[in-house]
Amino acid sequence: MTSEDAFTVTPWEVKGEVDYDKLIQKFGTSPITDDIVERLKKHVKEIHPFLRRRIFFSHRDMDWILNKYESGEKFFLYTGRGPSGHTHLGHLVPWIFTQYLQKEFDAELYFQMTDDEKFLHNTELTLDQTLAYTYENALDVIACGFDPKKTFIFSDIEYSKTLYKIAVKISKHITFSTAKAVFGFENNTNIGMIFFPSFQAAPCFLPSVLKGTNIPCLIPAAIDQDNYWRGIAREVAPKLGFYKPAQIHSKFIPGLGKGGKMSASEPETAIFTVDTPAVAHKKIMSAFTGGRATVKEQKEQGGTPEICPVYHYYNLLLKTDKEIEEVCSGCKSGSLLCGEDKLRLSEVIGKFLTEHQRKREDAKKIIEKFMLRD
Amino acid sequence: MTSEDAFTVTPWEVKGEVDYDKLIQKFGTSPITDDIVERLKKHVKEIHPFLRRRIFFSHRDMDWILNKYESGEKFFLYTGRGPSGHTHLGHLVPWIFTQYLQKEFDAELYFQMTDDEKFLHNTELTLDQTLAYTYENALDVIACGFDPKKTFIFSDIEYSKTLYKIAVKISKHITFSTAKAVFGFENNTNIGMIFFPSFQAAPCFLPSVLKGTNIPCLIPAAIDQDNYWRGIAREVAPKLGFYKPAQIHSKFIPGLGKGGKMSASEPETAIFTVDTPAVAHKKIMSAFTGGRATVKEQKEQGGTPEICPVYHYYNLLLKTDKEIEEVCSGCKSGSLLCGEDKLRLSEVIGKFLTEHQRKREDAKKIIEKFMLRD
Repeated sequence: MTSEDAFTVTPWEVKGEVDYDKLIQKFGTSPITDDIVERLKKHVKEIHPFLRRRIFFSHRDMDWILNKYESGEKFFLYTGRGPSGHTHLGHLVPWIFTQYLQKEFDAELYFQMTDDEKFLHNTELTLDQTLAYTYENALDVIACGFDPKKTFIFSDIEYSKTLYKIAVKISKHITFSTAKAVFGFENNTNIGMIFFPSFQAAPCFLPSVLKGTNIPCLIPAAIDQDNYWRGIAREVAPKLGFYKPAQIHSKFIPGLGKGGKMSASEPETAIFTVDTPAVAHKKIMSAFTGGRATVKEQKEQGGTPEICPVYHYYNLLLKTDKEIEEVCSGCKSGSLLCGEDKLRLSEVIGKFLTEHQRKREDAKKIIEKFMLRD
Repeated sequence: MTSEDAFTVTPWEVKGEVDYDKLIQKFGTSPITDDIVERLKKHVKEIHPFLRRRIFFSHRDMDWILNKYESGEKFFLYTGRGPSGHTHLGHLVPWIFTQYLQKEFDAELYFQMTDDEKFLHNTELTLDQTLAYTYENALDVIACGFDPKKTFIFSDIEYSKTLYKIAVKISKHITFSTAKAVFGFENNTNIGMIFFPSFQAAPCFLPSVLKGTNIPCLIPAAIDQDNYWRGIAREVAPKLGFYKPAQIHSKFIPGLGKGGKMSASEPETAIFTVDTPAVAHKKIMSAFTGGRATVKEQKEQGGTPEICPVYHYYNLLLKTDKEIEEVCSGCKSGSLLCGEDKLRLSEVIGKFLTEHQRKREDAKKIIEKFMLRD
């Protein structure tokens, strides 16, 4: 974070109000344009709301992936999760979108649980704890509706025989200087964390290794993970004879705290998939909003949906753009008060949670169909 | 290597004429004393020639290991090999001694093949090559006569599921600064090499992890490997709730080149276990010796066995001290000429190789009994 930046985005920290246009410039990615959306339309039944709403806003090599696809080379999807705690609604964004891509493109998904990284990064966490969260989080992944025949979820720890073999080949091409420049490692960083980028890059090449043929890879993930692919996987790919992975990046869903803050240490700032609708209701009713200080001011001046978590959760959960527009214009005009708005969101989220938790419970019976183990 | 040192000893380089007393001081180990040898006599049928001849010359915590043993806590043995090429006679020194310890103390042996390290360290080597050498070198280990019921040979790559889980726990306690100070890593060192010390330390705790109880560990190894145990395993052990591994260190067997040089890039400077007796004969007859420039000088002034590889190979291969003394005094007095001496060594080595190669061939049939795999 340089002094002129008002925000930080790294794989371990997202801080401040993120300027996504600046991020595209800074990371050197490309914006999702209408042209790309038009091109996608040729292959999908409908454009996903997350694309229309530019929650997925940036990419690398989407054109290339579509060229490959159109010339008959199918791609696989790769995304993942750092299992340091329970899944919250923000985590679901890339997974929901990935499930859409799997369905529309009939693509295999390799889903990595970085339980090693979370253990290595967090002083407080034991390996048993991150392994337990791998299981808990996997239930949420499965609840998103992935195809058990085409989805392979793996824990770094439990699948390390296969991954380590690929990771050592990657690591041979990455010096400490490079890792330091990409991730900001310091002299007091532990050597497990320093090696870890090799593990996170490994799944980019995993299906190619398993099947003995070069397969294009598309990574849907929040933009904070870009470093791994830009700095490591895409650098090393040609040296190992693999394609560079393409990427499509999502924004972050703000938390419920002041200024959209979401903090693992403050569970009231996030809605977890294991929260009961009643708990979620309480969190929503206490949330920070983009509304005015008083009802009078709100009615006169209207609110600011752009900075309002309630609005962002609608963006995530409401299917039609018409519904969003209604809420948005109601808020801006002052006709919709924050109280009503939160009540409505609480109802939407309550329904979502009830449904998700049912699927999550079912996932317990079929989880082994998804898990890839050595 | 500081400017005043005339030699370097690191896990990847042994250079110059090694002053073993200085090394004990520098590394902070303890010399093998007559007291220790006397104490060992209580437990073994006979003192191994390598101990009598102080080829094993240094240790850490041998007293402690014997205290444990005498109080009824059995220890396990751990040693290993970096499979970057074929085994030469120098490599056999710790293995022969380890086999003796296994037999005398009825101890389990965990034998690590660091095929990952050799791949990561050598630009030229592919992973397939180091894996192939793991197999070749394992045959030599088995030919040393280890008990198949109590010996577990494993490749880092093939046993990485178990090892990685231990290694990440170790690595969490080792900063880059520490690894740099211990191994001299630099900014251009690859991140696989930086992580690797965690893998080499892991077997110190492996049986304790597998059996769920703390078991003392004794490592017989050449002294160049000391860094791993001093700087990593012994530092981390108490943090993970394990005993610090004890060690017993051997000297290096000089090569056949000028000044006792042995170089992987010059195969004529070492005798490999796969060399035919004829090839070994040729190498021995061309070897550098501690003899004088001319027969006349040799007869008048005698030779210098201490700097002579022929003498060191006798130390390794002749069973009785009487035989060694005969050769030694013959050389010093000038009555034994280098030519005869070499012919005799060639005969001894030829017999050794024939016998070893027979056992090595037999090992191919039983290797799977020894291999530990995930």
